[in-house]
Amino acid sequence: LSALRKDNTGYDLRHLLIGAEGTLGIITAASLKLHPKARERTAAFAAVENPADAVRLLRMFQRRTGDAVESFELMSRLIFELLAEHLPRVRLPFSSPPPIGALVEIAAYSDDDAARLRETMEDVLARAMEEGIVSDAIVAGSETQRLEFWEARESVPLAKAKVGEWLRVDASVPPHCLAEFISELEGQLAEVCAGQYVAAYGHAGDGNMHVAARPRGENPSAHPELTARIAEMLDSTLAKFGGSFSAEHGVGQTHPAKLAARKDPAALAMMRKIKRALDPDNLMNPGKIFAA
Amino acid sequence: LSALRKDNTGYDLRHLLIGAEGTLGIITAASLKLHPKARERTAAFAAVENPADAVRLLRMFQRRTGDAVESFELMSRLIFELLAEHLPRVRLPFSSPPPIGALVEIAAYSDDDAARLRETMEDVLARAMEEGIVSDAIVAGSETQRLEFWEARESVPLAKAKVGEWLRVDASVPPHCLAEFISELEGQLAEVCAGQYVAAYGHAGDGNMHVAARPRGENPSAHPELTARIAEMLDSTLAKFGGSFSAEHGVGQTHPAKLAARKDPAALAMMRKIKRALDPDNLMNPGKIFAA
Repeated sequence: LSALRKDNTGYDLRHLLIGAEGTLGIITAASLKLHPKARERTAAFAAVENPADAVRLLRMFQRRTGDAVESFELMSRLIFELLAEHLPRVRLPFSSPPPIGALVEIAAYSDDDAARLRETMEDVLARAMEEGIVSDAIVAGSETQRLEFWEARESVPLAKAKVGEWLRVDASVPPHCLAEFISELEGQLAEVCAGQYVAAYGHAGDGNMHVAARPRGENPSAHPELTARIAEMLDSTLAKFGGSFSAEHGVGQTHPAKLAARKDPAALAMMRKIKRALDPDNLMNPGKIFAA
Repeated sequence: LSALRKDNTGYDLRHLLIGAEGTLGIITAASLKLHPKARERTAAFAAVENPADAVRLLRMFQRRTGDAVESFELMSRLIFELLAEHLPRVRLPFSSPPPIGALVEIAAYSDDDAARLRETMEDVLARAMEEGIVSDAIVAGSETQRLEFWEARESVPLAKAKVGEWLRVDASVPPHCLAEFISELEGQLAEVCAGQYVAAYGHAGDGNMHVAARPRGENPSAHPELTARIAEMLDSTLAKFGGSFSAEHGVGQTHPAKLAARKDPAALAMMRKIKRALDPDNLMNPGKIFAA
């Protein structure tokens, strides 16, 4: 509950509890720092040819706006196809889907920045088109259109669910490896099973990609052997880039075995010692993070 | 050594080690995130009458620049007098020191912001003067002058050392309480010992003030009773605002008793359990944070 911005008296218990998934205690009250609401935000969808260009575009926005990029979401062509097929009511930005669509949103927190926010957006996109990084782009002409862009992005989980089961990884890699990671993943998947569905989308600014794959037309459970090969490939590609198998979704009761197998053994041992020290009777959310 | 920006696989050991002062382990290698260098920075010294106006000025800069205020350092009149008396070679911004001098620095990370950085600085200061918040202000006319401003700020510890011993607190309070805290502190100190030296200065943007006091003309050790009353007053005023007795300097071997007395007992118990779990033989920097 401390409202201090700076406090250097002992161990950082706040960060220890955040992300502990209730295994170390229950947070019953907290002080929140409020950030000012953005004065203005604007969004655009840009069509790019490959992951490397997507990352180049992100860097252009970061450089120009001084890190005022609030969202940079990638959606692969398959994602647009899934949306068109299964959720026809959702408006899509491109009549013919590009290899990758990047949804970028920038925000202004000062009056000066707000006054030229749209100009900034158009400028960066124009320069990216001149440099051949972007082949097409649509800037939201209104708040309604900005929300439509987000509806397309946020409808992805629903469109995927309409198809059936997926093998999923909430992957993250160091941001500077992102383009290489996506390219490698696509190449590897094409090798393991031609004709599969692959859907990568996510928060590229954080190096976080939600990867989903399934044998085309069938649920993974119907093809246990192929499914195991895809899962193994996802894992090994992620490991190669020093990535995480859970960027934001946590460990929960699904991944304790994965955590035990993948986590650095020294870090895992520290985690176990902390858990035992603070909750010796294993009363706090048992079975989460660590196997029951 | 992880370079991941997002990783939600278990306890946050990084933040646990940061600020643990070597009592939980030794950091031998780390991955660092690099931030872009500022394109441009500019600084000014503003004269304000009281802590409340200082905080108002800070808010004006934050609102106008969208949090691009990199430094907001307050120096009380006594600080300027100490500098003038003991370090005459240091150039001071005001011929006659104001109650409080605020050194504010703003930075630009985009080309657009850089082009109008000085104009932004002058605009905010002009508006603050119109509103009666600032009585005088000097914007650095060159990089040399900007560095001179910082030399004045950074010479404070040396000027204080020339006087003799001080009672010191590396205090922080919730930022929204800062003005009230400084006013209360000054009032209380005036009551405890008229004619004392009080020197408050520090990083107001973080709610962090370095407070130093001593009986005028004498070292605290020469007046044990008065010194004890000053120390007690500093402590109780800090406690009243829910402040920290060590905003950035840590606990070390000077403050374990203070930590044991002041820290929330539940938090302290957690800290002790973690220490025992990770370093059962107390090999890691013994005597720091916890008494030997």
